[in-house]
Amino acid sequence: MGASATTTPELYAMNGGDGRFSYAKNSFLQGHSVNASKEKIGEAIAEKLDLKILLSTSKTIRIVDVGCSVGPNTFLAIQNIIESIERKYQAQYLNINQKPEFQVFFNDLTSNDFNTLFSSLPPNRQYFAAGVPGSFHGRLFPEGSIHFFYSCIALHILSKAPEELLDKNSPSWNKGRIHYINAPDEVVNAYATQYAKGIEIFLDARAKEMVSGGMAVMSFPANPTGIPYSQTFTGAMFELLESSLLDMAKEGKISEAQVDSFNLPMYVPSLEEMMELVQKNGSFDIEKMELTSPGVHASMTNTSSMGKAIVMHVRAGMERMLIQHFGSEIIDELFNRYAKKFEEFPHHVLPSKKVQLFVVLIRK
Amino acid sequence: MGASATTTPELYAMNGGDGRFSYAKNSFLQGHSVNASKEKIGEAIAEKLDLKILLSTSKTIRIVDVGCSVGPNTFLAIQNIIESIERKYQAQYLNINQKPEFQVFFNDLTSNDFNTLFSSLPPNRQYFAAGVPGSFHGRLFPEGSIHFFYSCIALHILSKAPEELLDKNSPSWNKGRIHYINAPDEVVNAYATQYAKGIEIFLDARAKEMVSGGMAVMSFPANPTGIPYSQTFTGAMFELLESSLLDMAKEGKISEAQVDSFNLPMYVPSLEEMMELVQKNGSFDIEKMELTSPGVHASMTNTSSMGKAIVMHVRAGMERMLIQHFGSEIIDELFNRYAKKFEEFPHHVLPSKKVQLFVVLIRK
Repeated sequence: MGASATTTPELYAMNGGDGRFSYAKNSFLQGHSVNASKEKIGEAIAEKLDLKILLSTSKTIRIVDVGCSVGPNTFLAIQNIIESIERKYQAQYLNINQKPEFQVFFNDLTSNDFNTLFSSLPPNRQYFAAGVPGSFHGRLFPEGSIHFFYSCIALHILSKAPEELLDKNSPSWNKGRIHYINAPDEVVNAYATQYAKGIEIFLDARAKEMVSGGMAVMSFPANPTGIPYSQTFTGAMFELLESSLLDMAKEGKISEAQVDSFNLPMYVPSLEEMMELVQKNGSFDIEKMELTSPGVHASMTNTSSMGKAIVMHVRAGMERMLIQHFGSEIIDELFNRYAKKFEEFPHHVLPSKKVQLFVVLIRK
Repeated sequence: MGASATTTPELYAMNGGDGRFSYAKNSFLQGHSVNASKEKIGEAIAEKLDLKILLSTSKTIRIVDVGCSVGPNTFLAIQNIIESIERKYQAQYLNINQKPEFQVFFNDLTSNDFNTLFSSLPPNRQYFAAGVPGSFHGRLFPEGSIHFFYSCIALHILSKAPEELLDKNSPSWNKGRIHYINAPDEVVNAYATQYAKGIEIFLDARAKEMVSGGMAVMSFPANPTGIPYSQTFTGAMFELLESSLLDMAKEGKISEAQVDSFNLPMYVPSLEEMMELVQKNGSFDIEKMELTSPGVHASMTNTSSMGKAIVMHVRAGMERMLIQHFGSEIIDELFNRYAKKFEEFPHHVLPSKKVQLFVVLIRK
């Protein structure tokens, strides 16, 4: 059995290794986001990254993937970023032979499977690789040392779920829910406040770590203003998980208190919320901030295979957290139920509701 | 069963995790070397490291432990280096408040257990930590980016055993041996040549990676000139392992061909050899190069516990390589035999024969 009913679930990285439920084998949703943003990143670098400024103080370009997990998506994204920077270098420095060297820092939580990440690094990579364990809600690098921050589908993660959700005497008590879908305003606000605090810390840390003229490119799930969270891709994914847990509580397979005390440490912001947080921080010029609809991969238009793939995706990402709270013995049943709910769900409407925020910032 | 009789054993990192045979629990010999060199490193930094030069181009001091394994020794060594640099900083910059930031790169082979290393990083560390997978026989970092290289008991490792040792038609064929103890000159020379090539590559790489004025401090097993290798601490350790394997081959538990094709990828140089290699490279000033006798820890003066501890130490360091070549099923028996041989050996004479080379270089 997992933790007691009065603690929040601990934050864990994705499933490691390369087994059936590993992130390495179940990261197509993120992989699709990587592809979808590939051209956008290339454009941002071509139009907005000034290598003359960056290379005036360094012969090395230092790149970070914040929340990289174990691959292979991170390697594709990094390759694209480096190739785009090299194209820009050729455009800015004609006839110069000495190209910059690249150092890439792969960052994720300490519980991430860095052994798997390292053993799957591309053998012919044109960069020096390093792994950096630690939360992006804090400093990770020395001052003024990073030229390019990249993050894909990570910035919706909170350092922890809001604590007031566990307080039975608070209007924010999140009884009978694992997230803020169809929740009272107090619960939504508790999540939004926790998220804002986390992003403030994130932006402060990155502002210190980046050189002037450095670029940060981030994409992550977003909630279009005016659309209820439950009707978004992410909201629907988690509502079905919640419903599976509630069914098991009704049948006595887990306790209600366990469900009440489990709250997902995630929040899906709107464009306006993110805009306000970046402006409040004040260290960055906003070069781009737009909602995108990356859709899903063509191989997933078959709704049944899409449903299965999404279930595996959620399992790869959240299994460790769920096991820590509910115990390992309920996990197979939970995901079997989750898969069944997906079969009955009109999930063919989901791709159109998958919305992300694509953000390009330049350090002032 | 392991690899065929015609391949050299693959190079593996130390045992990971924190189990009975893990490096983390069996690294006292290295730990003792860390302690023995603590003061020497402090002195080298105090006397020879010029922070004004280093900090004229960077606000960050970048430190590398080459061949760090999984801890805890590396954390103690790094702590000592940082404290020594901070003392030097105070001595060189009176009345200056802004101290430099430190970034520490923990390097070892990709097969090293970085997950264990990362999860045991000191929580209150005063530096930014990163892991760098890869062989020190090659480039690991961007040009001119490193201020301090440290390495303890790693530089005796070859990238591989010399290939000619496997050639039945060569005078270097290493039949009936796993190393060069009591071997013909051709075998010793093959090892020495392979070692020289590796150190040349190592020095070339570090010369490119280091900033001018940067310091490299290394200690590793050395062979005092005039003393046969078999009469040194390291030689004796490996001779007993060889003898255990030969006994098992005689009894048919492994094949003779398996022993013939297994050659330890290690070489213990003399001071003169290392001196010549550094001078040939030409990029470094030799501030110190001396033989030391670190002895063994006081807790090990009991010869029986010392024997046991050495057996565990060899197992933690070499088990993966031995399993890859001989198969896992013989490992327990091999180390039981090894332990017995140690009991019969006059190992109380060993501590006085433990000799290391302590080297301090400054990048020109």
